[in-house]
Amino acid sequence: MASKLTLSQTFKRLSSTFTAKTAPSKTHFHAPIPDSAFPQGYLLTGLHAGVKKKAGVPDLGIILSTASRPASAAACFTRNAFKAAPVIVSEEVLIANKGKARAVVVNSGCANAVTGSEGLEDAWAMVRATDALLKPLQGEEGQKNETLVMSTGVIGQRLPIDKILAGISSQSLKTTASSSSPSSSTPSLGSNFDAWERAAKAFMTTDTFPKLRARTFSIGGKEYRMAGMDKGAGMIHPDMGPPRASTGQLHATLLGCVLTDAAISPRSLQSALTYAVDRSFNSISVDGDMSTNDTIIVLANGAAAGEGAKEIDEETDPEGYEVFKKELTEFTIDLAKLIVRDGEGATKFVTVNVQGAPTYADAHKVASRISTSALVKTALYGEDANWGRILAATGSIAISQDFIPSRVSVSFVPLDGSSPLPLLVNGEPRKVDEARASEIVSAEDFEIKVELGLGSESAQYWTCDFSYEYVRINGDYRT
Amino acid sequence: MASKLTLSQTFKRLSSTFTAKTAPSKTHFHAPIPDSAFPQGYLLTGLHAGVKKKAGVPDLGIILSTASRPASAAACFTRNAFKAAPVIVSEEVLIANKGKARAVVVNSGCANAVTGSEGLEDAWAMVRATDALLKPLQGEEGQKNETLVMSTGVIGQRLPIDKILAGISSQSLKTTASSSSPSSSTPSLGSNFDAWERAAKAFMTTDTFPKLRARTFSIGGKEYRMAGMDKGAGMIHPDMGPPRASTGQLHATLLGCVLTDAAISPRSLQSALTYAVDRSFNSISVDGDMSTNDTIIVLANGAAAGEGAKEIDEETDPEGYEVFKKELTEFTIDLAKLIVRDGEGATKFVTVNVQGAPTYADAHKVASRISTSALVKTALYGEDANWGRILAATGSIAISQDFIPSRVSVSFVPLDGSSPLPLLVNGEPRKVDEARASEIVSAEDFEIKVELGLGSESAQYWTCDFSYEYVRINGDYRT
Repeated sequence: MASKLTLSQTFKRLSSTFTAKTAPSKTHFHAPIPDSAFPQGYLLTGLHAGVKKKAGVPDLGIILSTASRPASAAACFTRNAFKAAPVIVSEEVLIANKGKARAVVVNSGCANAVTGSEGLEDAWAMVRATDALLKPLQGEEGQKNETLVMSTGVIGQRLPIDKILAGISSQSLKTTASSSSPSSSTPSLGSNFDAWERAAKAFMTTDTFPKLRARTFSIGGKEYRMAGMDKGAGMIHPDMGPPRASTGQLHATLLGCVLTDAAISPRSLQSALTYAVDRSFNSISVDGDMSTNDTIIVLANGAAAGEGAKEIDEETDPEGYEVFKKELTEFTIDLAKLIVRDGEGATKFVTVNVQGAPTYADAHKVASRISTSALVKTALYGEDANWGRILAATGSIAISQDFIPSRVSVSFVPLDGSSPLPLLVNGEPRKVDEARASEIVSAEDFEIKVELGLGSESAQYWTCDFSYEYVRINGDYRT
Repeated sequence: MASKLTLSQTFKRLSSTFTAKTAPSKTHFHAPIPDSAFPQGYLLTGLHAGVKKKAGVPDLGIILSTASRPASAAACFTRNAFKAAPVIVSEEVLIANKGKARAVVVNSGCANAVTGSEGLEDAWAMVRATDALLKPLQGEEGQKNETLVMSTGVIGQRLPIDKILAGISSQSLKTTASSSSPSSSTPSLGSNFDAWERAAKAFMTTDTFPKLRARTFSIGGKEYRMAGMDKGAGMIHPDMGPPRASTGQLHATLLGCVLTDAAISPRSLQSALTYAVDRSFNSISVDGDMSTNDTIIVLANGAAAGEGAKEIDEETDPEGYEVFKKELTEFTIDLAKLIVRDGEGATKFVTVNVQGAPTYADAHKVASRISTSALVKTALYGEDANWGRILAATGSIAISQDFIPSRVSVSFVPLDGSSPLPLLVNGEPRKVDEARASEIVSAEDFEIKVELGLGSESAQYWTCDFSYEYVRINGDYRT
């Protein structure tokens, strides 16, 4: 063995300066939304409780359903073995309440992950404090734990729980008529754009803009709304599934929340969400790292469905269910893409489209591998049409059938409507017009298309590049 | 969906300057080796054939065994589905010749990967041209294809084969008495340090120093030598296995070559190499990307064994075999570590030690996941004792048993003999002395130790950090 220590001690640190392309401004991806586009029956706020050091920055978000019935609730949680306390608690609440809930509370700045039994107590305390804001429903005085909880931020540090609880109890349903007045030091619950925006801001960690979208859709001639927010922007390679009872003793992040005023049964809401999450949040990668806290929650309070309206259900109303599922899937794809768009240090937004796979799972696996390759991602940053790295990444994993190199094709697809550029056709490299290749990869957005020639299944993935800025952000996150 | 194109077109590229810590100089990891330490019966050279643009830089290496018998030969090749032409050809040669060979030829600058049928022809031409340098052995005039071939560099471009063939045929066994004279423009074959060093230099791509080591060992009272070279420094996450007949129609990189003057049967040489490679080259990662060209070759020409000496063999001489296997494993670990040490842009050399796993494969899988996490690696670069990321990476994969969070411990182990620093003990985070943590992670070399508490198997992995320089090198590799 080389005498590592003695030699390493002689290392001399050199310092030099790189000129680095930084991420472009993305603030224009956030714009005002008309108040009428938001679903009915929700009150929201975002405020500075003191988890984050910087004064005034929102770090606590509260979302309440004010409908006269508990909302149907569904969620997908990280499959990481080391689930954070809020994940464990939210799973328990959802299971105990059979898919019903009335509130969501979220903090940013501290993930409450790997915080032992104290962390669990803190998460439960957030649930109880938020529950206390809710008006008891008729005949449900005994109902408890109607709040789902989410946290994001540094792992392994305890929450400043007193500050958070004080923040929660500063709110009251009595002040709900409108949003905060500019003179008020603590913004109150509201239902207009300002309130939704403040809640979205409370989700943010390294995000550069709040991620808030709204959508209107019709089922059976009736109009509904769906709105939601999410956040990234690092430790983003989610793999989330439906809630399950935790088996462990104890146990930064993707968080998202979708709210709708449609009425749908809890079981069908979960089923639609699981489908949607597989094709949206589980198909994005910023850095290939899966968080302990990833959580997507959806509430459907039925506020626009009218009293006594029948719930949408997969079995009794398959047609309505399919429409809802499609709307939810498209909406979650929109939200998921925003996370990649704002990936830490990202200068590119790249769609990886894998076709001709034997199964959807195979297509998804190949797309995921390409989307997480450090070499592919640095080439994207360098605007280098290095398709060899795409191929090497593809071939580095096993799928359900052997690859047949002579059937594989790779092309770059520009998104301005001009012709795709074939790079590899049936295993034989094309003489590439490098100027044209550069033209395509110098665009902000483009698509990498890989045809495997082994079947008819396809999958899409969305990824970004690996930049100097990513290294800077993550080399010094905690300080 | 957001209107991506219109929005992206409005992006404005910003430019800024980072002050970046660069990789320390590593040239002191290369030092002269006494001529007597090299195995007997080999002639080597390295020269500039013209694959690389820069004049004088070695890009062609030739290694010949001059023993009176063909050497036993073994190899491990990449498991990437898109094997480069030299990998396919070397596999064919090894299988056809039943584990015998007399030469190795290597070029750097172009990987001859994804080059179709022309690439295969080029690789065969390199084999034939190098074969022609060999003196026919008595009674083996008909012997053909005794050369194994390796290439490293850009994927998808054809070799400048005429330049390479001219380089090979510039060599001749007649000039073998000594190394090149300084006045000669083309260095000739030799057996001293200078010749070995030139061969090692011909392997290099983004490597900052030639990787050459030698080792002396005894079996049954007889002294043997082992020497070898390898190269990295990017697309390094090998998974190599023994040769197998190629099933595909067609098919930068880890290359390595170990030469010994011991006599060992081809089958036992392959068996020892497969064992050694799993614990050395298959246990390192620079960037998590598996190359199409990864190849480790070992030749054992028996030149120090004496005429008619019995070959070491797993069945007939298990004791000798175990010694040889141990020596080869330690030697390949030395060579593998050099690659991590010189990983593209690396400023750290980190050992990831996973203990308490149910199986070796589980331990290896966890160690690999930690070693490839972008967030762990950027934290290493930033000298941030962010153990939460280590835990998140661990929990993100499935192993043969469920993790039990309350049994998991993580610590940082300094290599200066001072006390390890526990960060997480049985699932509960310790109040960490951040100053002490910083002290440990600011060293060039240290160890991350993870105890899973699920069994008694362990595995080691070696990794480096993710730096600005890695992004710079790989954002602009081809230009």
